[in-house]
Amino acid sequence: MSNLKKFFTFLFLVFTLFQSVSFADVCYLGPAGTYSEEASIQYFGSSEKLIPNKTVSQSIDMLKEGKCQYAVVPVENTIGGPVYNYLELVAEDDSLSVVGKVDLPIRQALLVWGNAQLKNIKTVYSHPQGISQSKEWLKQNLSDAKIVEVSSTAEASKKVSELEDKSCAAIASEGSAQVYHLNVLARDIQMNDSNVTRFWVVTNTDRQINNGDHYILTLTGDDNQVVKLLNFLENSGYKIDYIHDIPRKTYLGDYIYLVELNSNSNSTSINDIIDDNAYSDLNIHILGRY
Amino acid sequence: MSNLKKFFTFLFLVFTLFQSVSFADVCYLGPAGTYSEEASIQYFGSSEKLIPNKTVSQSIDMLKEGKCQYAVVPVENTIGGPVYNYLELVAEDDSLSVVGKVDLPIRQALLVWGNAQLKNIKTVYSHPQGISQSKEWLKQNLSDAKIVEVSSTAEASKKVSELEDKSCAAIASEGSAQVYHLNVLARDIQMNDSNVTRFWVVTNTDRQINNGDHYILTLTGDDNQVVKLLNFLENSGYKIDYIHDIPRKTYLGDYIYLVELNSNSNSTSINDIIDDNAYSDLNIHILGRY
Repeated sequence: MSNLKKFFTFLFLVFTLFQSVSFADVCYLGPAGTYSEEASIQYFGSSEKLIPNKTVSQSIDMLKEGKCQYAVVPVENTIGGPVYNYLELVAEDDSLSVVGKVDLPIRQALLVWGNAQLKNIKTVYSHPQGISQSKEWLKQNLSDAKIVEVSSTAEASKKVSELEDKSCAAIASEGSAQVYHLNVLARDIQMNDSNVTRFWVVTNTDRQINNGDHYILTLTGDDNQVVKLLNFLENSGYKIDYIHDIPRKTYLGDYIYLVELNSNSNSTSINDIIDDNAYSDLNIHILGRY
Repeated sequence: MSNLKKFFTFLFLVFTLFQSVSFADVCYLGPAGTYSEEASIQYFGSSEKLIPNKTVSQSIDMLKEGKCQYAVVPVENTIGGPVYNYLELVAEDDSLSVVGKVDLPIRQALLVWGNAQLKNIKTVYSHPQGISQSKEWLKQNLSDAKIVEVSSTAEASKKVSELEDKSCAAIASEGSAQVYHLNVLARDIQMNDSNVTRFWVVTNTDRQINNGDHYILTLTGDDNQVVKLLNFLENSGYKIDYIHDIPRKTYLGDYIYLVELNSNSNSTSINDIIDDNAYSDLNIHILGRY
């Protein structure tokens, strides 16, 4: 091998090493201090490389463009219910798979700048889910305040911190108070102490699909066929966790059904059931397994 | 009968007559010019007394307090999907029944003050559903405009009319342009020409429940039992139109399932099926029939 060839081989190796080191691993809904960041750390451990994104849609785009390997997406909350916009982003793209989940307890706090008091607060910033989860508390304690939706709970903290304005407050995690140097004026303002947000760990289909006993299916077709299939799955050893319907935007009543199943050790293979000719009218897609 | 007694009987009759004449019949999401008003007129005919309300929640409250006999509630749209907040309001109250529906084609227009042009528009007002339905058009034509959510599409028209500001526009029906003296700058800006909104005609259970072949059920309990029941209903001559899940805000995965069924002439009586001991673990409620 000539020295020049050796040099280029060396350069190529350095470049490859650089690429793998600088490769953005996990995209999440930023900025720092969001519940999505907390869920990402919980799943991947703090050593992994986390990349904050401005929107969930941007995280999914990064994933599809190969700029990261995983995206952590909030999909469901005890009080706010399914987050349809985000579920839709994942469910409608056949190139994506769900390979894991994190169920994160959510405690919302009211965060303020400096020594602001409740009577000073005229404007409250939060993500729509944060607002929905704290609706009752807001009604009782800040019924006259203007409510402003922003892209994440941490974004709300960031905003109040940047404004340095004592008439503003954020509904966000206590963790984000530290990140943005805010004070906690009220704790546990969420409606419900069993408030949990579920996050999906999403990847593209080229990645290794994890094994596990949870399956996420998308089903499209005649509603009666969907029910027949679910009933058959139930008789074949699967427990249904939930059924969400996402509008296909075509005509009234045309939905993608998103179903999560829990198999037991004696369950018939799901692929055998899907391959069964009796359900050939249905479009069945395994969106995830974990 | 003494003259005094006659006089009081006469007074009582006048009062009763006055009450029945001034009785607010149908509450809808106002102001004048909303799609809800259009749906109400389509169902009841223009001669009925229509009462605009500021919110759907207010309409339901009026109904529960006996201040009107019916409320017309938008519950589903081809593009925006189920309107969960409104479905929830009706589904979670056992004293309410659905006795009819209206499927209204929705055509959205961009309405402006005076001779305003597209290049003038800096702010667009509409209901969240109007915004969601026109998202693509807005992205292509007014990507820099500020989008402001208001309580109804007609409220958006009213706002632009009151502001008399050429930098503002409303996404609303062409009908509301006439009501609020606005001009139509763009027609059919909704994403989809088959865009339809479904309205429920809701009453309290004391009213006459209409006959009909459509049933709306709410089901709570184990998801597998829900599927078993739906499968049994399907085998008993019912066709499933949709299955929506509404979070119960208790713990993750606890939902009310809202199911619409279409019976045929040979269907087994739905009451017999509900009374079947096999489904005693489920809470089954007939929310409506029309």
